[in-house]
Amino acid sequence: MPADRRTRILIVGGGFGGVYAAMELERLLRKDPDVEVGLISNENYLVFQPLLPEVISGSIGILDTISPIRRLCPNTDLYCREVESIDLTTRTVTASSGFRPRPYKLECDHLVLALGTLTSFVNQPGLEEHALPFKSLGDGLALRNHIIHALEEADIETDAEMRRALLTFVVAGGGFSGVEAVAELNDFVRKVARSFRRIERGEIRVVLLHAGPLILPELPADLAGFAQRLLQRRGVEIRLNTRLAGATGETALLSGGERIPTRTLVSTVPAAPHPLVSALPCRKEKGRIVVDSFLEVPDFPGVWAVGDCAWILDSKSGKPCPPTAQHAIREARCLAGNLVAGLKGRPKRAFTFQALGKLAALGHHSAVAEVLGIKLSGFVAWLLWRTIYLMKMPGFDRKVRVAVAWFMDLLLPPDIVQLKTGNSPGFGREHFEAHEIIFRQGDRGDRLYIIVDGEVDVVREAASSVEEVLARLVSGECFGEMALVSDSPRMATARSATAVNLLTVDRDGFNALFSHYPPLRRFFQQVINDRLRPEGPAKAHPAANAGRDHPSS
Amino acid sequence: MPADRRTRILIVGGGFGGVYAAMELERLLRKDPDVEVGLISNENYLVFQPLLPEVISGSIGILDTISPIRRLCPNTDLYCREVESIDLTTRTVTASSGFRPRPYKLECDHLVLALGTLTSFVNQPGLEEHALPFKSLGDGLALRNHIIHALEEADIETDAEMRRALLTFVVAGGGFSGVEAVAELNDFVRKVARSFRRIERGEIRVVLLHAGPLILPELPADLAGFAQRLLQRRGVEIRLNTRLAGATGETALLSGGERIPTRTLVSTVPAAPHPLVSALPCRKEKGRIVVDSFLEVPDFPGVWAVGDCAWILDSKSGKPCPPTAQHAIREARCLAGNLVAGLKGRPKRAFTFQALGKLAALGHHSAVAEVLGIKLSGFVAWLLWRTIYLMKMPGFDRKVRVAVAWFMDLLLPPDIVQLKTGNSPGFGREHFEAHEIIFRQGDRGDRLYIIVDGEVDVVREAASSVEEVLARLVSGECFGEMALVSDSPRMATARSATAVNLLTVDRDGFNALFSHYPPLRRFFQQVINDRLRPEGPAKAHPAANAGRDHPSS
Repeated sequence: MPADRRTRILIVGGGFGGVYAAMELERLLRKDPDVEVGLISNENYLVFQPLLPEVISGSIGILDTISPIRRLCPNTDLYCREVESIDLTTRTVTASSGFRPRPYKLECDHLVLALGTLTSFVNQPGLEEHALPFKSLGDGLALRNHIIHALEEADIETDAEMRRALLTFVVAGGGFSGVEAVAELNDFVRKVARSFRRIERGEIRVVLLHAGPLILPELPADLAGFAQRLLQRRGVEIRLNTRLAGATGETALLSGGERIPTRTLVSTVPAAPHPLVSALPCRKEKGRIVVDSFLEVPDFPGVWAVGDCAWILDSKSGKPCPPTAQHAIREARCLAGNLVAGLKGRPKRAFTFQALGKLAALGHHSAVAEVLGIKLSGFVAWLLWRTIYLMKMPGFDRKVRVAVAWFMDLLLPPDIVQLKTGNSPGFGREHFEAHEIIFRQGDRGDRLYIIVDGEVDVVREAASSVEEVLARLVSGECFGEMALVSDSPRMATARSATAVNLLTVDRDGFNALFSHYPPLRRFFQQVINDRLRPEGPAKAHPAANAGRDHPSS
Repeated sequence: MPADRRTRILIVGGGFGGVYAAMELERLLRKDPDVEVGLISNENYLVFQPLLPEVISGSIGILDTISPIRRLCPNTDLYCREVESIDLTTRTVTASSGFRPRPYKLECDHLVLALGTLTSFVNQPGLEEHALPFKSLGDGLALRNHIIHALEEADIETDAEMRRALLTFVVAGGGFSGVEAVAELNDFVRKVARSFRRIERGEIRVVLLHAGPLILPELPADLAGFAQRLLQRRGVEIRLNTRLAGATGETALLSGGERIPTRTLVSTVPAAPHPLVSALPCRKEKGRIVVDSFLEVPDFPGVWAVGDCAWILDSKSGKPCPPTAQHAIREARCLAGNLVAGLKGRPKRAFTFQALGKLAALGHHSAVAEVLGIKLSGFVAWLLWRTIYLMKMPGFDRKVRVAVAWFMDLLLPPDIVQLKTGNSPGFGREHFEAHEIIFRQGDRGDRLYIIVDGEVDVVREAASSVEEVLARLVSGECFGEMALVSDSPRMATARSATAVNLLTVDRDGFNALFSHYPPLRRFFQQVINDRLRPEGPAKAHPAANAGRDHPSS
């Protein structure tokens, strides 16, 4: 922090609300030496959300959907860190550590909250573990790689059931982002399947789950109907009035109880408040920060909020503003104007904005649009969609890159390289519904399991196909360590007795930890020895006793 | 495996040797129904190594340096898996598991080994933990992100010493790949520094370490001298006759004992044999598989080897072939020809090839080249370099993409977005030389440490700046758990007493593991209780006793 008494403005969040507020402040302040603007964001770029679905198909370059924040607001101090806590009274933000483990505190005179929302899978069993979110650039890349991985595996899989699950792709949520995602996913999978020798296009199944009676509830019914028929014609199976109720590694569980075997489940719902927003002591409405008509937070002088994290009532219509980029940008400009007006002693302006229109891309040269009251669909809407977003894309170099990429996409085949990120050894989480196989006798032992909650049966399959239940394990017990220690195939099958949540430690992690820390190694050896003793140890409360009389792995 | 008796050819490895062998086999066999060609590779793309340095600066798109193998050899069965073991006698390859933990076995009549080499940091203390390799596409992306991360941190760092380390970039190895990497790195860092408000270009230090008296030993001395002077003029500090001896998280250790404080250390040496090759029972020379003049492995009928993993003597000159892409491609074609000749009962051909030339790009429109005996340097060599590689780039769509990217690079500023890959909670490794700070009293507790080897002092710093050594910890002990359990700052400083290797478990991993597995939680609570007892437990062999009488965290 500088020691001088310049006015410090700190913006928290690097989405449309935060970055456009910084851009507008720079424009209005014109390098005013008495004001400093800072922005803290966990990424050093702004994601241009409307183009994110195109990352799936790679029709634009991976980096083309994002703009470096430093280039958009060159006179703003960018702090590329995670926010750990916010104090509204002292207007202090604590950021995560950098290369050294030291907390980093930032104080300011004006604090602008632009934290957006997060995808939250809380209370939906198995989604946290097995569903793919679709909100950040990282999500888009991970989904793309996952799809290619599933196709690679399907191409060499001989088991018919497994093959079907690998070639089934389920997207939950029929709003804008779900529809745009499923459209791109469907186009991409069907197009690139040609490059896989043993995959027939007819084998591919793409399913869209939607809770309501018609997709795209944000649009007029006739446009939504057009979109729905178009997607169906292109092979998307649309399941209306159906919610995603849960997931395991192998199935999507639908609200009616039906299960769809799949290895690729994308969920675009629901958006939940950012935990930092939930922790704030100010007044909230539906989890969003209540602001006055000037976008200031009541009772906390110098604190402002903008974008999806704010509960903003339009000053003309009195209605709450929807969480769209169009609104966030206008709100950010209004906020910056009011903030500067306050500094200069000029009057503030109440926020009002009428959305110009709504656009949804449907993949392969189609879209639906409602712009200034006019409804468009098909190719014309698609051209309009591209033109509008190209104009709105911040940064000149981005516009050029996207335009070139779109042009090349018309000529060249889509990419099918799978960019694996080097996954470090570590921990994982898995969810199983009742009566599912966790691993099979004879499988390779690739991880240790710890039961977070639920119960698991350890079963020995005999040659006569009669099975023998060796043990029932409960919360706080571990299993599967023996195949890791001995590097042999699994000696028994593990099957969930109830719905179960598991924590896993992979082979590399297990080996590193237990080979270098003798006390832990002795601890696990004791666990194994107890299991192998025919009579087993005295049975106290199960959670107090990891050693049980069964070969579980 | 199909039950019929078609001839099966299996290629192991997806580099130039493997992919070009598959392409040539497809060409020669012309969809012969009696022969099946398979290729197993851990990535589904071929990396065009010569363009890899451009990934650092982003002057070509991330995906432009790689070509999907499926498109290059559409009639080959691609198995996108890791190879786990190879049996030369039965010609059986075991691959890693896919979505299910089942081993995957592939048998064949002809086995082509094209495993290449790996970067190996064995026997160089600290390199495995702290040096960045530069061989795969993943390495290139990781390096690029690391550089941007260092710049982001330097921009907001106030500690002068830390700032210097963040702005110092060290590349070890003055051969082709080291020189091309340092040239791109230097250009990129100096160019993008403009976008960081508080970084002066004069603060940036880029160092190239080279073991010999002149860089680029592969080239004639006058061209190497030209390259050396050019890099120096552009600000690269070249340290000749200097080897990298080791590394910690904060310094590069040079052979003479000097230390360069840096947070970015790239090592392009040495290339080591693939562990799978080392495990093979056939004859080897310098770790490479010895083959006859037809590229067959003696004593193992039906086994062939090609590329960097093979020890190939040129049949005219009698000299071993260098490990270059040019050679791998020619070897692959010769091998494919001989394999098909064997199938059809035609005569085989001994391998010979005279390299056409050598090219090294020096960044920013410069290169050095020796082509067909003619020496070129500067802009002309650079134009030649681009033209040749564009022609050699496999796949038409790739040629177009690279050409367009190069053209745009002339017009648009380089990209500075940092693509973070979501790193899962997990384990890490760290190396410290003697008398270095591992963490400081007051730091945030972000991980648990386990001593693999070496010794660590736990030190309490008093207000009078007199320090008190609380304990000395040895191999097999852990420290730092207390700040994790209590979520408080470090209560003491940990400092290496000798050179030390550490295994770390991060906060998320620690919490997940110990909160869900009560026996382990009780185990660690006991460790902590023992430490807090003023007298401590009876001292047996230290490694046998994780509980010690000191507050280590």
